[in-house]
Amino acid sequence: MGSTSQRRKRATIHDVAVEAGISRGTVSRVVNGERYVSEAARTAIEDAIAKVGYVPNTAARNLVMQKTQAVGFIVHEPHSLFLNDPNIGEILLGANASLSDADYQMVCLVIDSDRDTDRVARYLSGGFVDGAIIVSARKNDPITRVVSGLDLPAVFVGHPPELDDVPFVGIDNRGSAAAITSRLLETGRRRVGMIAAALDRDSGADRLAGFTDALGDHFDPRLVVEVPLYEYSAGVTGMRELLAREPNIDGVFAASDAVAAGALEAIREAGLSVPGDIGIVGFDDSSWAARCSPQLSTIHQPAGSLGRRAAETVLAQLRGDEVKLGGILLDTPIIWRDSA
Amino acid sequence: MGSTSQRRKRATIHDVAVEAGISRGTVSRVVNGERYVSEAARTAIEDAIAKVGYVPNTAARNLVMQKTQAVGFIVHEPHSLFLNDPNIGEILLGANASLSDADYQMVCLVIDSDRDTDRVARYLSGGFVDGAIIVSARKNDPITRVVSGLDLPAVFVGHPPELDDVPFVGIDNRGSAAAITSRLLETGRRRVGMIAAALDRDSGADRLAGFTDALGDHFDPRLVVEVPLYEYSAGVTGMRELLAREPNIDGVFAASDAVAAGALEAIREAGLSVPGDIGIVGFDDSSWAARCSPQLSTIHQPAGSLGRRAAETVLAQLRGDEVKLGGILLDTPIIWRDSA
Repeated sequence: MGSTSQRRKRATIHDVAVEAGISRGTVSRVVNGERYVSEAARTAIEDAIAKVGYVPNTAARNLVMQKTQAVGFIVHEPHSLFLNDPNIGEILLGANASLSDADYQMVCLVIDSDRDTDRVARYLSGGFVDGAIIVSARKNDPITRVVSGLDLPAVFVGHPPELDDVPFVGIDNRGSAAAITSRLLETGRRRVGMIAAALDRDSGADRLAGFTDALGDHFDPRLVVEVPLYEYSAGVTGMRELLAREPNIDGVFAASDAVAAGALEAIREAGLSVPGDIGIVGFDDSSWAARCSPQLSTIHQPAGSLGRRAAETVLAQLRGDEVKLGGILLDTPIIWRDSA
Repeated sequence: MGSTSQRRKRATIHDVAVEAGISRGTVSRVVNGERYVSEAARTAIEDAIAKVGYVPNTAARNLVMQKTQAVGFIVHEPHSLFLNDPNIGEILLGANASLSDADYQMVCLVIDSDRDTDRVARYLSGGFVDGAIIVSARKNDPITRVVSGLDLPAVFVGHPPELDDVPFVGIDNRGSAAAITSRLLETGRRRVGMIAAALDRDSGADRLAGFTDALGDHFDPRLVVEVPLYEYSAGVTGMRELLAREPNIDGVFAASDAVAAGALEAIREAGLSVPGDIGIVGFDDSSWAARCSPQLSTIHQPAGSLGRRAAETVLAQLRGDEVKLGGILLDTPIIWRDSA
């Protein structure tokens, strides 16, 4: 163990010029790859560059060009997303892949407090990025205002509430929920309930609406239990409550795979079997789905594609292409496995 | 639905000066909050700023100051970390919290391909960040070389192989593994095996070494099954293999909680009970541990603290404080629950 030296100051062109004993103008020409520099001067300058550890400052060069070649990826609510959401990692990697192909650096910015909100808003408006991908936007928040005010090329993942004049990439939660509920009804289940989660978000409210659509006249509000988050533990308590309300329940739509996994645990606890006594379906096709026993029948969320399409939408704006406002909705196939 | 207009060019001080009909020098004095500007000029300039939508370019100002007020958070191997590692989210949020308190912007950069490696190396050396936190470093990779070459204030999370001259924050995997194995042996188990994972990483190799330490003369290499990754599915196959090799096995140390969760599934499959027939312990104290049935006895990884300490180590370097090279090892208490 030793100690680090104090931080060196970054070497500048000036340091190279002093070390080489050659004018800054000549050093600058060498650094920028221009011709008409004598071999002797070039060699002396290259030696000086190595000696002082000079690295061209890309940030400075980009600034002159008024472009940073970077795109922000803004994550609101990181606790629920990074720690519980099965999709955020794949959305992020999908976006990174598309930006990387176009030689853009993705810089992920996390908003976990009001302090973060203000600082990220300053970062976005401060000339550090050419565009932004925003996950989990909220109405009227400072980030959304900055993006609109600066006319910063941007796209939202998921439908930002009451923001219709921005491009977004998402899925049809309502239609998808109706489709998987109908499929569950087709297996002959008669007393079908739902563990509804996150009703304060568009996704949660839309999944409940889709369930209601599919049941039509057979909808019974007593068979809907509401839980706050898309979480395993919420699935356990939600399912216990459904069993208490209706011991003869024979089908359940859980608002996410994590919720469905918790429901499976509560059903096992109660000495009942899946799919024998109760058929259960989830939503997301996350790693939970394949990990459950039995494996879950569910709706596939195209998380990687959401990230890639979001990135492509920002890149199109950066190229100056016309971009459709409103949503691009991606397909969400039903994946039918063993739980129903 | 409509179409976005083409991107506006960012307004500059020049635009404000033209709009207000006032010199750029005076505009600059107002923007920088200096005095000795007439009220009339100030009002005209403020109106012009609002009209042209001018926002001061923080990136430019920072460049002049030779500081960006941003710290990079580099994630190598994002597929295994973001999609399977239970800790990365908490490490990231811990780092963000400490950096945010010090008014630094954390910018998370993902390295998922060789193309990413080169571009992130250029970004780090290009003057965009003042320091870096590096998760999952590899020996001799371009990122490590850039950090050393530039003398960029940096810290590694986890022990970078063969890099002893850099500060890092981590845990004692070997000692922790020995501690939980000893605790398992104290419950009276006689035929104790291990599902060892990720032996190509320091963490994986150290956990196996700790298990070997604890068993001493009772170590039986036949009771160690090696699996490639810290994954649920690897736990299932690893446990099946252990049961095939030694049907009388009565204790298992799984290299992570996800591996332990898979092992529980294989034990249930075999018609055996936990902890009745087999006691099982994990490592991480991740969300898996509380979600399993029975809940896992395990080692607590202080993920949030790892992130906070890493950030504090970079901040100390940025203040010019002396920073110890080598490792800061955080405590890893045993959390004893129901699986052993």
